[in-house]
Amino acid sequence: MATVKLASGHSMPLVGFGLWKVPKETAADTVYNAIKAGYRLFDGAYDYQNEKEAGDGIRRAIDEGLVKRGDIFVTTKLWNNYHSKEHALPMMKKQNEAWGLGYIDLFLIHFPCALEYLDPEEKRYPGWWMADGETVSPARVPIRETWEQLEALVDHGIAKSIGVSNFQAQSLYDIYTYNKHPISSLQIEHHPYLVQPELIKMAQTHKIAVTGYSSFGPQSFLELPEAFRQRPESVGLLFDAEPVKKIAAKHEKTPAQVLLRWATQRNIAVIPKSNNKDRLAQNLDVTSFNLSQEEIDSISALDKGLRFNDPGHYLHNHPLHIFA
Amino acid sequence: MATVKLASGHSMPLVGFGLWKVPKETAADTVYNAIKAGYRLFDGAYDYQNEKEAGDGIRRAIDEGLVKRGDIFVTTKLWNNYHSKEHALPMMKKQNEAWGLGYIDLFLIHFPCALEYLDPEEKRYPGWWMADGETVSPARVPIRETWEQLEALVDHGIAKSIGVSNFQAQSLYDIYTYNKHPISSLQIEHHPYLVQPELIKMAQTHKIAVTGYSSFGPQSFLELPEAFRQRPESVGLLFDAEPVKKIAAKHEKTPAQVLLRWATQRNIAVIPKSNNKDRLAQNLDVTSFNLSQEEIDSISALDKGLRFNDPGHYLHNHPLHIFA
Repeated sequence: MATVKLASGHSMPLVGFGLWKVPKETAADTVYNAIKAGYRLFDGAYDYQNEKEAGDGIRRAIDEGLVKRGDIFVTTKLWNNYHSKEHALPMMKKQNEAWGLGYIDLFLIHFPCALEYLDPEEKRYPGWWMADGETVSPARVPIRETWEQLEALVDHGIAKSIGVSNFQAQSLYDIYTYNKHPISSLQIEHHPYLVQPELIKMAQTHKIAVTGYSSFGPQSFLELPEAFRQRPESVGLLFDAEPVKKIAAKHEKTPAQVLLRWATQRNIAVIPKSNNKDRLAQNLDVTSFNLSQEEIDSISALDKGLRFNDPGHYLHNHPLHIFA
Repeated sequence: MATVKLASGHSMPLVGFGLWKVPKETAADTVYNAIKAGYRLFDGAYDYQNEKEAGDGIRRAIDEGLVKRGDIFVTTKLWNNYHSKEHALPMMKKQNEAWGLGYIDLFLIHFPCALEYLDPEEKRYPGWWMADGETVSPARVPIRETWEQLEALVDHGIAKSIGVSNFQAQSLYDIYTYNKHPISSLQIEHHPYLVQPELIKMAQTHKIAVTGYSSFGPQSFLELPEAFRQRPESVGLLFDAEPVKKIAAKHEKTPAQVLLRWATQRNIAVIPKSNNKDRLAQNLDVTSFNLSQEEIDSISALDKGLRFNDPGHYLHNHPLHIFA
């Protein structure tokens, strides 16, 4: 299995299974079946609300002797409401307990913005950015305060590696002025409509392993509520894009495989999800064939700087322009 | 004179004179003549190496009774080598003494990245990013440490307002988690090839007055060394762009005036420079006519996301991807 070396010294698989939008009810089976199909990396988050169930699926596979804990790589993320010194460590410990696997391989700050604390015991997870469905309530918690709690998590032996998600270069440079542990990984939206070559270059130059999410572009967003669909519906599917189709035919692969290989060949990890057995296998088989530089460039030329996961766009009442 | 209200409570002229690339030898006369032409805002920086001379020009005008200190608005900026708690306040005080006007109206952090300290007494200003002409040497100084020194400068009565330059949105949001004084202004590269509508929206929503630099786009960079000219030489001059020329003809203004009005009409301050008496006057006359929304949009449609002042591009050995 192809891996990428993290700055922490640990290795991360280049291909994993993403748990965003995997229903709680089916998450254990989905994860268990993904392990059977050969997946070893699972990318979760408090926000996805299926950490316990994903952990159940992994433990079932371990109990049955399919894999050992050390074969599996678990990524998860701290949500915006728990950034403060007071709440970050207790929340991350609870998340670790929910997974039930002894430790987390890679813990990320999900977004570079803190929101007001919400007690998860008293209140059902309020759904993302707006506790009341209408208001985004920022909290005055500097990124440094949160990062230092992630470092404490490493010191406690709960996380092996730490990193961030959805951070701009300036936020990464600032962490480098005070960090004690390395930034092992940066997870960002990455597909041919949003290539971000300079951010990737900056990260990889600094030995920050990049993971791309939403590798298929608009596809992942079409089932979401209207505000989220405006941008994805404004463009064609990447599966239908001419260079992608042509290259897929030439290599006798699916367009999805070509999109994933376009990333992994540049050492960018990918975390697709699928409920379909054949596609599960196909999505994993994206390190065994090579695109030519010309083919990679022709796919990159589809770049529109078009971001779909943009709270500066879809949070209408209180937009957070965190990518501007 | 058109002004914009700052979050500090003070007002800033919407049109000023930019001191970048104004030679030390002629700076006093240039500034004095600009005051005669009606300019009231002067935008300087330690980096421009002409603060004392610009201050001389202002004092000559004050001594002659042309203006009072209170009529003039001085902006200046702290350079990257002086970000640390140890060096920032002494350096900013020295800059204030160089201007010789009692106080600075607006003090900005020039770039969101700290470089190793260089003693300005022992060593002639080493020219920008690379002390030895080849190496960029970052210093581990968090942005917060520097911002807090700017706040101290306000508390000492030396700066009336403070702000930042070349910051991304995430850097602004992070300052909002710990600032005691408001971010009064954000200065950024802004012209029709680099429109950045979301960053401007974010700033203006938060009452951060935006100042655009390099309003004429490639024009300002064509006289610089080769590494800086690659991007500007890859595109046409904005003065020759079809919508700009057409709109200029219609309003009986110069293309330069149209480019400046495109900014000021959206409440974005501008800081052009000129050595030519007629153009000095023309550049100041950019708040007295109005473009239609359609005209503004047709100019904005020239956007290429093309940044000329990008140390991720022109610092070849040690690029700083601070805009990625």
